[in-house]
Amino acid sequence: MQLIKHQDSPRYIKLNEVDNVAVVVNSGGVAKGAQFDGDLVATEDIPQCHKIALQTLAEGEAVIRYGQTIGYAREPLPQGSWVKESQLHMPAAPELASLPKADKTPADLPPLEGYTFEGYRNADGTVGTRNILGITTTVQCVAGVLEHAIKRIKDDLLPKYPNVDDVVGLTHSYGCGVAINAADAYIPIRTVQNIARNPNFGGQALVIGLGCEKLQPEQIINTEHYHLGEEQTWLYKLQQSDLGFTDMIAQILALAESRLAQLNQRQRETCPVSDLVLGMQCGGSDAFSGITANPGLGFASDLLVRAGATVMFSEVTEVRDAVYMLTSRAKNSEVADAIVREMDWYDRYLHKGEADRSANTTPGNKAGGLSNIVEKSLGSIVKSGSSAISAVLGPGEKASTKGLVFCATPASDFVCGTLQLAAGMNLHVFTTGRGTPYGLAMAPVVKVSTRTDLAQRWPDLIDVDAGKIATGACSLEEFGWELFHYYLDVASGRKQTWAEQHRLHNDLTLFNPAPIT
Amino acid sequence: MQLIKHQDSPRYIKLNEVDNVAVVVNSGGVAKGAQFDGDLVATEDIPQCHKIALQTLAEGEAVIRYGQTIGYAREPLPQGSWVKESQLHMPAAPELASLPKADKTPADLPPLEGYTFEGYRNADGTVGTRNILGITTTVQCVAGVLEHAIKRIKDDLLPKYPNVDDVVGLTHSYGCGVAINAADAYIPIRTVQNIARNPNFGGQALVIGLGCEKLQPEQIINTEHYHLGEEQTWLYKLQQSDLGFTDMIAQILALAESRLAQLNQRQRETCPVSDLVLGMQCGGSDAFSGITANPGLGFASDLLVRAGATVMFSEVTEVRDAVYMLTSRAKNSEVADAIVREMDWYDRYLHKGEADRSANTTPGNKAGGLSNIVEKSLGSIVKSGSSAISAVLGPGEKASTKGLVFCATPASDFVCGTLQLAAGMNLHVFTTGRGTPYGLAMAPVVKVSTRTDLAQRWPDLIDVDAGKIATGACSLEEFGWELFHYYLDVASGRKQTWAEQHRLHNDLTLFNPAPIT
Ligand SMILES: [Ca+2]
Ligand SMILES: [Ca+2]
Ligand SMILES: [Ca+2]
Ligand SMILES: [Ca+2]
Ligand SMILES: [Ca+2]
Repeated sequence: MQLIKHQDSPRYIKLNEVDNVAVVVNSGGVAKGAQFDGDLVATEDIPQCHKIALQTLAEGEAVIRYGQTIGYAREPLPQGSWVKESQLHMPAAPELASLPKADKTPADLPPLEGYTFEGYRNADGTVGTRNILGITTTVQCVAGVLEHAIKRIKDDLLPKYPNVDDVVGLTHSYGCGVAINAADAYIPIRTVQNIARNPNFGGQALVIGLGCEKLQPEQIINTEHYHLGEEQTWLYKLQQSDLGFTDMIAQILALAESRLAQLNQRQRETCPVSDLVLGMQCGGSDAFSGITANPGLGFASDLLVRAGATVMFSEVTEVRDAVYMLTSRAKNSEVADAIVREMDWYDRYLHKGEADRSANTTPGNKAGGLSNIVEKSLGSIVKSGSSAISAVLGPGEKASTKGLVFCATPASDFVCGTLQLAAGMNLHVFTTGRGTPYGLAMAPVVKVSTRTDLAQRWPDLIDVDAGKIATGACSLEEFGWELFHYYLDVASGRKQTWAEQHRLHNDLTLFNPAPIT
Repeated sequence: MQLIKHQDSPRYIKLNEVDNVAVVVNSGGVAKGAQFDGDLVATEDIPQCHKIALQTLAEGEAVIRYGQTIGYAREPLPQGSWVKESQLHMPAAPELASLPKADKTPADLPPLEGYTFEGYRNADGTVGTRNILGITTTVQCVAGVLEHAIKRIKDDLLPKYPNVDDVVGLTHSYGCGVAINAADAYIPIRTVQNIARNPNFGGQALVIGLGCEKLQPEQIINTEHYHLGEEQTWLYKLQQSDLGFTDMIAQILALAESRLAQLNQRQRETCPVSDLVLGMQCGGSDAFSGITANPGLGFASDLLVRAGATVMFSEVTEVRDAVYMLTSRAKNSEVADAIVREMDWYDRYLHKGEADRSANTTPGNKAGGLSNIVEKSLGSIVKSGSSAISAVLGPGEKASTKGLVFCATPASDFVCGTLQLAAGMNLHVFTTGRGTPYGLAMAPVVKVSTRTDLAQRWPDLIDVDAGKIATGACSLEEFGWELFHYYLDVASGRKQTWAEQHRLHNDLTLFNPAPIT
């Protein structure tokens, strides 16, 4: 990476030797006539994060970033000019039928030993980073009553159980008025099922249903996964009430109190890093995402994988265009085939809805200098570091392996986060360039900014600033280690993220590709 | 309707002269050997709401309820036996290509004059029944910050503006991570747009966005519909903040306070019933829905239509099998064609998702005696009374006509309610047999039980009991008038529904048939 020392002089970042465009990093962009190191001169004003042509490109010539083709010039692009979305033809998506498979599987990195965190060990072997009463719901019908009950639980009961961090209603819009036997209905159903088993809930099943809904409690709670007593100890259906609303609240409070008493006995103990299940994603990306925050996550991901942890990356529409790099890195051809299977499923899902991969990029991405989904993908997958990909999860599936895992989810921040919770995530990291107050109630979310000015503008929302990689204030390696230690502090409860401190929570958002009725 | 006087003697309800099955109405059902009026004897135990064969039916013979075929006997059904779902073949869905159109358009009912309610008249001519600050959101990203801001607004500001009833965040899961140019994306977009214009929000646009999302504020707020000043008076994007979370909250509070000051000036005034926009739906139906609550709503619907109001019924999958009755009743062939258009769209939507109309009925419906969607539909459409159908709305469209309107929505309670809010509903009525605590924050919801025992069991959730129609305690006409007056009381704020008193609110749930990314 080529960095220039003077904070105020025009400077760009070129990531790969063969790149013929680079990204302007100066806070206010550069003005026409700006002179970079070497003999490059900007031929027009270029905003921060946007691309400058390092050499003159002929019409039809490949525009190269990250060492990969991100488009073809629609017109001649003079050296020093601002390279814009409108000037590029997007390359075709890689053909799924002819991808390389496990041909460049990385060798195992050397084990990393001696790092631990303080967590709550559960009966099923998983480890929580927080001690939360999660109340599962079968259907949106019960949301209003549960919201009331939770307010009462927080006010009247929670103070009596100081070891419990929070009480969270796992409300969602599924459960009834849905085609529950449709081909794709298994996705929302197993998501609800597996969220209930998230390690942060301590294996305490507690389900509130209505009674007449399509999604029945036994579809959500597989009793083999829990140490459960009689049904009435873990399930309450509002239609059982013979006395109405006041009675419903009292019944829910009684069940919640028995759960709080059990959760209150949990104690943190020293756990190996291999008990971490980290979910990584990005939202509100800009052209810095791929040069600061996401490579920083990638470095820390390699550290976690070396220490035996489970590390998930996701967002199908943001890896689709770079999928050949992932299938190459798969542990074996079965894993590569599973990556292809998920891409193919999503291609068909988008096609059915008369949309395609170009639907991913947002106005914010474009304002942030990302020309198209190809460029965005290349910057997105660097989160995954350099380890072999050891497993693939379908949407809503629960992780059962260590190492680097591709968890196939939509890129939508809430949907991805919800599915990573179902996969068993006990720690979440989220990189952002444009800025978002994203948070989840069920797991701590570490927010990493791609630029220092965002971290400075939002000091009470951004937890870690990766922008200092671009200014040269620290190296990628230094940043990666800093983030690794930050993860352990947050997982251990020694640090609370800003989203936790403000209790900033987005809604659970299920992925339901099946019809509603 | 055939009613038997003694509360404890075995009794059934037969709705149409030609019916060959009837519904048992005794609270605990009837035992084997029970002797009904006439010479009918139950040949087995039959639960309440379930069907008894009034005569012996041969294999293949049509089973008739509401004067319509609800199925064909799979096996001989002896007189007095319990007629179950498993014993019926479901009839094919009516062919859309050959429906009768406007061939039985009812004559206009005589005008009903002299009834009024007290409402809040808006600049655009609509009338609110409540005075609510509704804060529109472009994207789920802002939900956590807005939830915080709303708590602060309620605690710190609302007490200073006593004429304002509530502050409601119009949060949803749309806005980003969606295929915004997909063929069907117009549905969630216009829904968000039209909910902002609901009459209960007094025409006060206030939008919280993030800044980089796909759904941009100008797609939601058509400035022609509002009396708006500079953009910064009605729109705040979190990414505008140069100071982070604390600043965001302060900015939202300042905007909200200027809105509260304006809303606080609204005064109720006497309005004709023609300013009501009633949304009707049912949820958790049973076999009583079609003989008590829904016919009661139908009678009151006719009264409202006679008084010039807008009355909407909905739930495509619950009218699909009785659609020939609706196309016949259309005001003209254009309206009949629009009904067919909506049915056809939904048939194709379900087909794409590999589901069909049989996906509608729930375990609760079946336990409640409804054998299939044909029987459920016949009981559902009686809500619409006997007026001509004067208009059809696509999902998320805003009503612009008076009279009886078919508002094409899914049957899902939350999705239907959300789309009826977008259609401009200022009063909601919801019938239930199995029981649900359903409520919305944006409009009062009147809950009507189909059975008296539900009303008695849930005295603090059920507003009006239609079960007394079945016991003979009141006639359909008496009940319909009672409900009509109840509507006017609630619309005028003289009565608060139970859902309002407990602040029992379900989430807005958008209908998004397009893919997410
Ligand atoms: Ca992303
Ligand atoms: Ca994302
Ligand atoms: Ca219904
Ligand atoms: Ca419904
Ligand atoms: Ca909520």
